[in-house]
Amino acid sequence: MSLVSVNEQTLFLGVDGGGSKCRVSLFAADDTLLGTGLSGPANPVYGVERALAAITEGARLAVSDAGLGIEQLKNIVAGVGLAGVHLPNILEAVNNWQHPFKEMVLTTDLHTACLGATRGGDGAVIVIGTGSCGYSIVDGHSQTLGAHGFLMGDKGSGAWIGLQAVKAVLIAGDELGPKTVLQDLIAEKFQCENLLLVEKLTAAPSRDFADMAGLVFRAADRGDAVARAILADGAGYINLVAKKLLDNKPPRLSLIGGVANLLVPWLDPAIVAQTTAPLAQPEQGAVFYARSQLLPGFAGTVHAQ
Amino acid sequence: MSLVSVNEQTLFLGVDGGGSKCRVSLFAADDTLLGTGLSGPANPVYGVERALAAITEGARLAVSDAGLGIEQLKNIVAGVGLAGVHLPNILEAVNNWQHPFKEMVLTTDLHTACLGATRGGDGAVIVIGTGSCGYSIVDGHSQTLGAHGFLMGDKGSGAWIGLQAVKAVLIAGDELGPKTVLQDLIAEKFQCENLLLVEKLTAAPSRDFADMAGLVFRAADRGDAVARAILADGAGYINLVAKKLLDNKPPRLSLIGGVANLLVPWLDPAIVAQTTAPLAQPEQGAVFYARSQLLPGFAGTVHAQ
Repeated sequence: MSLVSVNEQTLFLGVDGGGSKCRVSLFAADDTLLGTGLSGPANPVYGVERALAAITEGARLAVSDAGLGIEQLKNIVAGVGLAGVHLPNILEAVNNWQHPFKEMVLTTDLHTACLGATRGGDGAVIVIGTGSCGYSIVDGHSQTLGAHGFLMGDKGSGAWIGLQAVKAVLIAGDELGPKTVLQDLIAEKFQCENLLLVEKLTAAPSRDFADMAGLVFRAADRGDAVARAILADGAGYINLVAKKLLDNKPPRLSLIGGVANLLVPWLDPAIVAQTTAPLAQPEQGAVFYARSQLLPGFAGTVHAQ
Repeated sequence: MSLVSVNEQTLFLGVDGGGSKCRVSLFAADDTLLGTGLSGPANPVYGVERALAAITEGARLAVSDAGLGIEQLKNIVAGVGLAGVHLPNILEAVNNWQHPFKEMVLTTDLHTACLGATRGGDGAVIVIGTGSCGYSIVDGHSQTLGAHGFLMGDKGSGAWIGLQAVKAVLIAGDELGPKTVLQDLIAEKFQCENLLLVEKLTAAPSRDFADMAGLVFRAADRGDAVARAILADGAGYINLVAKKLLDNKPPRLSLIGGVANLLVPWLDPAIVAQTTAPLAQPEQGAVFYARSQLLPGFAGTVHAQ
């Protein structure tokens, strides 16, 4: 990777590209945030062209937000954390991109999320958002747990919680499982039930199920046994993920993602006691990684994945 | 519905249109099978035009198989059992079809499957194939259980069994769940594991998961605890469906679909003892229903759904 012409004054873009959106932040050399951009889905597994277009659009918005012209992109280094690049063919497709930046440094979105949470040091994160996964990097060794997607995994995530709720409601509607207040809450949300609810949700994306997670937490607060069982099951899995990551002795473990805070009361308190708040965002983590790869004198402790 | 010009000599086509294929049989007035046709997916929920084209193609093949010309379709009555027509907007779209038949009599594929299994009488069926569902019709009252689809239900079905196997294998791959011989069996089938397996199956249709069900039965036969737990869980649900349907006092209960026979050894023997083999195919059931609706003197006991 070229080291020429990247120096202590170079601006860095941090890109966090995931399945539902792409966040981009522009940082000055002293880590001052200069501008941000938000664009659409950027998981290249579901379309490389769309993902690359989302990165370009987010970068354009961030640069514009900082008062710079888009022609400046060619002077800026992009650190890019992207879902799906653990897959060899996806990694190759993205690396072959004729990107608009001075230089692009690519790694997985989990890696950059972890580097953000630790400010570039060793550590671990569990992402509990629309989906779920765990990641640690310690002494140059990384481990990924979960990241199995909506259909086959994502246990404990918002989408998983919502899907379990719909399954329980449908079974209860057939009088083959316990009644639950989720029946009323979900019928009210969608204005239908039983087979009409099935029709409405059959092709729905995972984020539509994640939108239901709040109802499950609400029902659990009311003492609903079905909702409580769903959350206990999901939390039990996240406990296992946390224990496995803690076995790697990471200096820090952070829970991140939109559902993390909601799930904390359901987790093992002994595990929660070992977690700390993330120090920075994934976009910052992407910049830490890019600097560590391009600036020989960079003082961070960032390991390549 | 017009009764003109349909008489005891009229030929009837029976159509069984489901999510993976459309089976069509042509019957003489005395129920002799004259020809059959097999065409593609015919669930109008996933495309009305495609479903109607599949019915036409299946009918064309069946008529041709019987040595008749396609122009004969206009003299033939079609009894059509179709997935998805329990949904009002789908029912309307199919009923508005300018079909090529003398007359079309439409109902759900579950209804015609049940009428086939009972030769047009009251009774109940549990379909255990790629998906799962239960249906009974007794004294003009019908009940549908399940039919919640791959993502949200289909418990006990081939696709559900395969999906549980993949989930268990991925969890075991992360060392967060028990080891299982399914890990080797599935790795061998797909020549990959862990996140590469996730990629291969993320967008796979339910029939690809149903194709794995045989591996789970094989692993269970070898004593694998994970496989046995999956089959016991699925069978437990089918037991509940059967008990609920038997509460309606149907004269017969039949288990149909490609996975039914495999699952029988896992079901409650007291329930299996109350089942009987289906008397005829769903296409025949569709013809029973069409005759009952169009021939005033039809001796059957077929009730409208």
